[in-house]
Amino acid sequence: MDQQIKSELRSIVGKDYFLDSPNELYVYSYDATPLYQAMPDAVVIPASVEEVSAIMKVASKHRIPIVSRGSGTNLCGGTVPVEGGIVLNMNRLNEFKEIDQENLTATFGPGVITADVHKAVEAVGLFYPPDPGSMRISTMGGNVAECAGGMRGLKYGVTKDYIMGLEAVLPNGEVLRVGGKNAKDVAGYDVTKLLVGSEGTLAVITEITAKLLPLPAAKQTMVAYYNDLTSAARSVQRIIAAKIIPATLEFLDQATMVVVEDFAHIGLPLDMKAMLIIEQDGSQWQVEHDMERIADICRSEGATEVRTAQTAEEGASLMAARRSALSALARVKPTTILEDATVPRANLAEMVDQVDIIANKYGLQICTFGHAGDGNLHPTCLTDERDKEEIHRVEQAFEEIFHAAIKLGGTITGEHGVGMAKAGYLDLKVGPVGMDLMRRIKEAFDPHGIMNPGKIFAKSARRRVVVNTNGCGCEHEHAHN
Amino acid sequence: MDQQIKSELRSIVGKDYFLDSPNELYVYSYDATPLYQAMPDAVVIPASVEEVSAIMKVASKHRIPIVSRGSGTNLCGGTVPVEGGIVLNMNRLNEFKEIDQENLTATFGPGVITADVHKAVEAVGLFYPPDPGSMRISTMGGNVAECAGGMRGLKYGVTKDYIMGLEAVLPNGEVLRVGGKNAKDVAGYDVTKLLVGSEGTLAVITEITAKLLPLPAAKQTMVAYYNDLTSAARSVQRIIAAKIIPATLEFLDQATMVVVEDFAHIGLPLDMKAMLIIEQDGSQWQVEHDMERIADICRSEGATEVRTAQTAEEGASLMAARRSALSALARVKPTTILEDATVPRANLAEMVDQVDIIANKYGLQICTFGHAGDGNLHPTCLTDERDKEEIHRVEQAFEEIFHAAIKLGGTITGEHGVGMAKAGYLDLKVGPVGMDLMRRIKEAFDPHGIMNPGKIFAKSARRRVVVNTNGCGCEHEHAHN
Repeated sequence: MDQQIKSELRSIVGKDYFLDSPNELYVYSYDATPLYQAMPDAVVIPASVEEVSAIMKVASKHRIPIVSRGSGTNLCGGTVPVEGGIVLNMNRLNEFKEIDQENLTATFGPGVITADVHKAVEAVGLFYPPDPGSMRISTMGGNVAECAGGMRGLKYGVTKDYIMGLEAVLPNGEVLRVGGKNAKDVAGYDVTKLLVGSEGTLAVITEITAKLLPLPAAKQTMVAYYNDLTSAARSVQRIIAAKIIPATLEFLDQATMVVVEDFAHIGLPLDMKAMLIIEQDGSQWQVEHDMERIADICRSEGATEVRTAQTAEEGASLMAARRSALSALARVKPTTILEDATVPRANLAEMVDQVDIIANKYGLQICTFGHAGDGNLHPTCLTDERDKEEIHRVEQAFEEIFHAAIKLGGTITGEHGVGMAKAGYLDLKVGPVGMDLMRRIKEAFDPHGIMNPGKIFAKSARRRVVVNTNGCGCEHEHAHN
Repeated sequence: MDQQIKSELRSIVGKDYFLDSPNELYVYSYDATPLYQAMPDAVVIPASVEEVSAIMKVASKHRIPIVSRGSGTNLCGGTVPVEGGIVLNMNRLNEFKEIDQENLTATFGPGVITADVHKAVEAVGLFYPPDPGSMRISTMGGNVAECAGGMRGLKYGVTKDYIMGLEAVLPNGEVLRVGGKNAKDVAGYDVTKLLVGSEGTLAVITEITAKLLPLPAAKQTMVAYYNDLTSAARSVQRIIAAKIIPATLEFLDQATMVVVEDFAHIGLPLDMKAMLIIEQDGSQWQVEHDMERIADICRSEGATEVRTAQTAEEGASLMAARRSALSALARVKPTTILEDATVPRANLAEMVDQVDIIANKYGLQICTFGHAGDGNLHPTCLTDERDKEEIHRVEQAFEEIFHAAIKLGGTITGEHGVGMAKAGYLDLKVGPVGMDLMRRIKEAFDPHGIMNPGKIFAKSARRRVVVNTNGCGCEHEHAHN
């Protein structure tokens, strides 16, 4: 990036918010996804939509890649600047502008932390359901870009279901406002929902208006332990078939239970093959009624123990244990590769079996946990990136897992996004017609291809789950453009 | 349209399903929207996705406009073939393919009638919430194309919130499959939600997979009568602010009550200025609990009477009365123009006032009713299209109503769509940046502009609510291309 451009960018945000020293750039060369890394040419930290617009005009004129990011907690390599260019750190747009209690909406900047939204709205008796695993660190801009999911997806849906309005800056610097506070709005194409989950490849989100619900009056948590995986999966199916939709319906296999227990010490019975964590919310009456019926179903499907948390604290600690699964797994081996294969929930048992068969076939340690009620599984491989031969088997195994998910009517990613990690596999789900169409939609927003290039759309046909993009992890600057 | 093309189309669907006699074409020259009419060049009635694909290839090659339609119950002139071409009647793709009770989905062709979806899924204890006024006649393909709303939008959302997967044919004849039965799916851009509400301007929908909910166990209906509009509107705001989300929260002003009573004879007190019809569903406990609190709020806001329906039949007859509002209004004067201005619900009272002021200013009879809980009002003008001077005032009044809605943070259409009726006003809501972007999205799907041309995007800058597109209503064929 030449000095003239750097000085233009510096003059927009001020010198403190333009970074280009190797040490500073290094910090923005990776995200939460293992094995992906690439150096940006500059990091720019704007404070307003006007600054974002001015930056985009410079980037557009000089065809500089733009990778907007918040906390970088995504798990698809979504914010790795694989073609260099500018990383746009959006964390200064973190104003919590409004909670509108009459319209049940909240409006804030993309830099606001997800858990802070929860806290702010719950303080006035309202509820923002999406709760991705990284919610204490992740920003709402990132949640919108990736269409983050979480543990309450079964009953409450995902980020997309709560985003009513957006302000965004297009690649050419134009400011777009779509949606708003209207409960119903069919004025033209739904650009709001199109931007949610577009992974920074279409526009830079600068303001978010989210829908809120009344906070449920009561909540209860339950665990059920099983001697075999199939009984656990069948319980999930039977709960839904009984027309009960719990807020949360999570699954952990034995391998995951062992590491979670070692991490969280909550007394899990480690001789069990699987457990479900079930949470229901609503009126006290509804919660008790549903929990009784759920317990009956679990028992009749062979659960060896069904236990209801006696206090809110006990419930919270069970949920915290589930939330700790990824951190716990990450301690076991040097490299943890968390996948996101998802199937229609009726095919959950079969998918769990398939993962097991594939793990054995390739001699890998794959632990499986996830949002069973959504059919959204996270088979997680514990491996070591230095062992090239094993990493090769990991790639083969995950490719087979994706194929198995697609064969069962599923998808390659339920909530983590495509990014770089799944770009080579997107055609499995959407086919060549879908790929072509998505490329044309991308061009409608971003004719010069500067928005988060290398994400969603694979450059090469070769499929790779794990790629160290420029390999070195070194601290000197690279020329990428 | 030349004979060669006609014979190509005839060979695709068979001669019985290709119509081009003046009498047959006339039937497809209008829809439920008053004052819009234009003759197609041919009507083609395919029976399969393969036939649709073959038709689209012919249309694409010869640049023939395609207007796909079901029952034509839309209220925005959405299916009037304003540039001639082919009307694609989708009613033969009416197979109800599946109710999947494990995944809580239903899959069917676009020709299935909305009320038949309700019936089929309710028979197995499931629930498809969207219930547009025309649900006994409208097709699901039309509901998807227009993103139909209804009376349960407040609690349950609109069509978009229930469409999980679509099969659609692109203008070039390619068959696209997007989404599916996965509760979570972030594999690429959300083309499914983009197609919902795209009004036939992007693709032809050939199969729909909808999300279902468990059917609520109980339901109760209540009416509240008011001496003034503001108290009714304030009750709506206070119910929501009390964090109660009723399934239905409908508003009728006095003028509407008078015509509904004349039509339905249910004993409405015609000296009242407004009424609310409120329905809650859920567990018996929740319903009773909520209804008590709602009744208290209505009384404290000055309702002169609050009455709970004593039986399910009484509740149903109240809802039927509300549903009859449009039919009842349509009997009063030769021409009924139903509008769809929508505001954030907190601004409902102010919007109702504005409509009143504007109606007086232009000396028009405007009755207002609608989905108060959504802020989605239907100010309805009773007029006579033969009175050109009055129609001119109607146009001016509605233009002012749209501006008032936008000024209150609202939108030009909550649930009826843009079509031709609102095309001249879309820029009020989405601005020039939004208009340009939507045009580019349209081109990404439809580079030759053959998909329902003249809809959503206005050709001329002149704004007109009511336009008789080719005026004559005559029965001889026109040359349009």
